[in-house]
Amino acid sequence: MPTFRSNIVVFNLIARRAFTTTSTKNMGFVEKVRLLDYWKIQDSALQSEFPRSRLVLMVDRRLLVTKDQPDVQMVELSFDDLKQRLGEYGLQFDLSNSCLLDALSTDVDMIPLFGTSIDAADPPEDSPISKKEVLKQLGNSLGGRFTDIRMAMLTMREERQRNLLAKFQSLTKWASIYRRCPKCAAALKMRSSKSGAECVTCQRVYYPTFSPVSITLITDPTNEHALLVRHRGSAGGVFTAVAGFAHSGESMAECARREIAEEVGIEVDSIRSLDMSQPWPMPDSSLMIAHVAVAKIDQKISVCPDELETAQWFTRHQVKEALTTTLADPLLKNLPRTLDDRQTLHYIPPAGAIAHQMIRQWVDGKLENHNSRI
Amino acid sequence: MPTFRSNIVVFNLIARRAFTTTSTKNMGFVEKVRLLDYWKIQDSALQSEFPRSRLVLMVDRRLLVTKDQPDVQMVELSFDDLKQRLGEYGLQFDLSNSCLLDALSTDVDMIPLFGTSIDAADPPEDSPISKKEVLKQLGNSLGGRFTDIRMAMLTMREERQRNLLAKFQSLTKWASIYRRCPKCAAALKMRSSKSGAECVTCQRVYYPTFSPVSITLITDPTNEHALLVRHRGSAGGVFTAVAGFAHSGESMAECARREIAEEVGIEVDSIRSLDMSQPWPMPDSSLMIAHVAVAKIDQKISVCPDELETAQWFTRHQVKEALTTTLADPLLKNLPRTLDDRQTLHYIPPAGAIAHQMIRQWVDGKLENHNSRI
Repeated sequence: MPTFRSNIVVFNLIARRAFTTTSTKNMGFVEKVRLLDYWKIQDSALQSEFPRSRLVLMVDRRLLVTKDQPDVQMVELSFDDLKQRLGEYGLQFDLSNSCLLDALSTDVDMIPLFGTSIDAADPPEDSPISKKEVLKQLGNSLGGRFTDIRMAMLTMREERQRNLLAKFQSLTKWASIYRRCPKCAAALKMRSSKSGAECVTCQRVYYPTFSPVSITLITDPTNEHALLVRHRGSAGGVFTAVAGFAHSGESMAECARREIAEEVGIEVDSIRSLDMSQPWPMPDSSLMIAHVAVAKIDQKISVCPDELETAQWFTRHQVKEALTTTLADPLLKNLPRTLDDRQTLHYIPPAGAIAHQMIRQWVDGKLENHNSRI
Repeated sequence: MPTFRSNIVVFNLIARRAFTTTSTKNMGFVEKVRLLDYWKIQDSALQSEFPRSRLVLMVDRRLLVTKDQPDVQMVELSFDDLKQRLGEYGLQFDLSNSCLLDALSTDVDMIPLFGTSIDAADPPEDSPISKKEVLKQLGNSLGGRFTDIRMAMLTMREERQRNLLAKFQSLTKWASIYRRCPKCAAALKMRSSKSGAECVTCQRVYYPTFSPVSITLITDPTNEHALLVRHRGSAGGVFTAVAGFAHSGESMAECARREIAEEVGIEVDSIRSLDMSQPWPMPDSSLMIAHVAVAKIDQKISVCPDELETAQWFTRHQVKEALTTTLADPLLKNLPRTLDDRQTLHYIPPAGAIAHQMIRQWVDGKLENHNSRI
């Protein structure tokens, strides 16, 4: 939980860095972690690194990603390239709308990876060219294309890419909200890294908040059936596992048990955590923690109508079919159109979602549901 | 994640409640959860329940607990009893300094359990009686005694009691801080339950925040040694597991790996979560999630000097001795006095801490450290 480093450690970091002549390609994980920790709180150090940094980009809350499907990645640009290309479109960025995401090794030392989020001005009303068109051209000139954050999270194959995007989106949103101290309403001084903000009057420090969320695959005692739910407003025919935010004073198991009661109105006999977790940035920053639960299948389901459209028990075969459909059509292009069909299991969430991994493991018979407790 | 219930559900709840004649001792868990959810957002309903409620109490941030050692519990009082007893000392409470903790079954229906936190005025300077003395008398008249929150968390045997206290402390602290909107600085309208606050100007809703924390028992590949740490400022001779707050965009495993690098300067080969979690209210509200990690024992330990005093590898026998000492002296009454001795393993955290459970399982040979991943 260190938030402040003593001078000794900081000195060692700087010394090690300034006088190193060997390649840091293999610079240790420990040194990297401690350097990031130092940059987080030392605004002046981070400011001097900024022009040497590499950056990923959002414009109007859309993310710059590689053109090549299906393996989507964020496009990473050098500071100079980004400055020049954006400049050609009359756009600019600085440290104030950037957040620190990671430290990258070069041949000689380490440089920061930032996420920069800018808003593009709307073109004049009489402009012959639309904003959408401008963004398309800008994406091209930057060697990529702009896409929806949610879609990027769902389709990125690499956990590192997804987690960096979750961090980028979470810190950007948090930094845009935390402008004033909730206790005394004075101005907050935001760190350059966006990893914290201090009240100029009462000196309280606020940190980016994100909430633990339990996501639970509910199975029956035979482990041959799973209860999946359809959220209001989600894409037609997509079913997933029950999830919900933990409340103060709950263990994760208690959270899972309560959320299941709230959302589908049934009680579970046991709950077990699955050693899988995933940061997720929408709609609010959360950390999804996977669980499996066992519930008797003869209970009357009573869905919470504000959250869910429907909740149903499915056989392993039915879920396997939906998994196959999803893997064949990861961008959910063939979504059902009719209302009845929307209520039928066609898809599960795409591979970027932790729900996908959980459901897939269960379909493959790798999720045992015994040996658990509540 | 429901935060608002449709009228249908609310109607069902009220109807079920108003017309029930059978005992609700067995009123289902689902109904209880949904009633709490309704009370949370319906201030008027909660206000009308307040005079029928039961309450637990903090005065000057000290908790009213039962007199009987060793099994400490919170003293639960009826609204009328508390009002009368506090009144005798010129103290009063109302819904504004109370938070909703739970719903309790009576013979006929359900009533709220609140936590009420009040500040006692300092006696006049020339008063012959000290504040400490007054609180002692007040505790007696309420059938208990006042104790430190941290000590209560560490010594309460029941998970339900600990988790209710964690909720009480977290919500009370949160409600005292979140007075103004961090985005626009306008006043926040706090729910009576203290489960959320809405900005009167921009309508943003803020929820009590608490952070996921990884707590990790580091073992060596033979599983015969464990790495424990001593925190600066903690009681002498007490060693525990490495812990730290998760940052935005991290999975719990990544958090554990980073915290270990930050705090003790070593890399781990694998990390596995343990299906144990615990809300903990000090210093900031957190949800501790247990992990076990494997690290090679020949790495040079380099502690973060602002956080830790020392970190050492111990044999299972050494840890077992400390466990035995702790179980025999759970209130840590025989703490070592000398500086050298403070750096020696004498105790582990008492039974109320998740670290205690983790270490105890390892000592008993019930914590396997294989079959894990990073």
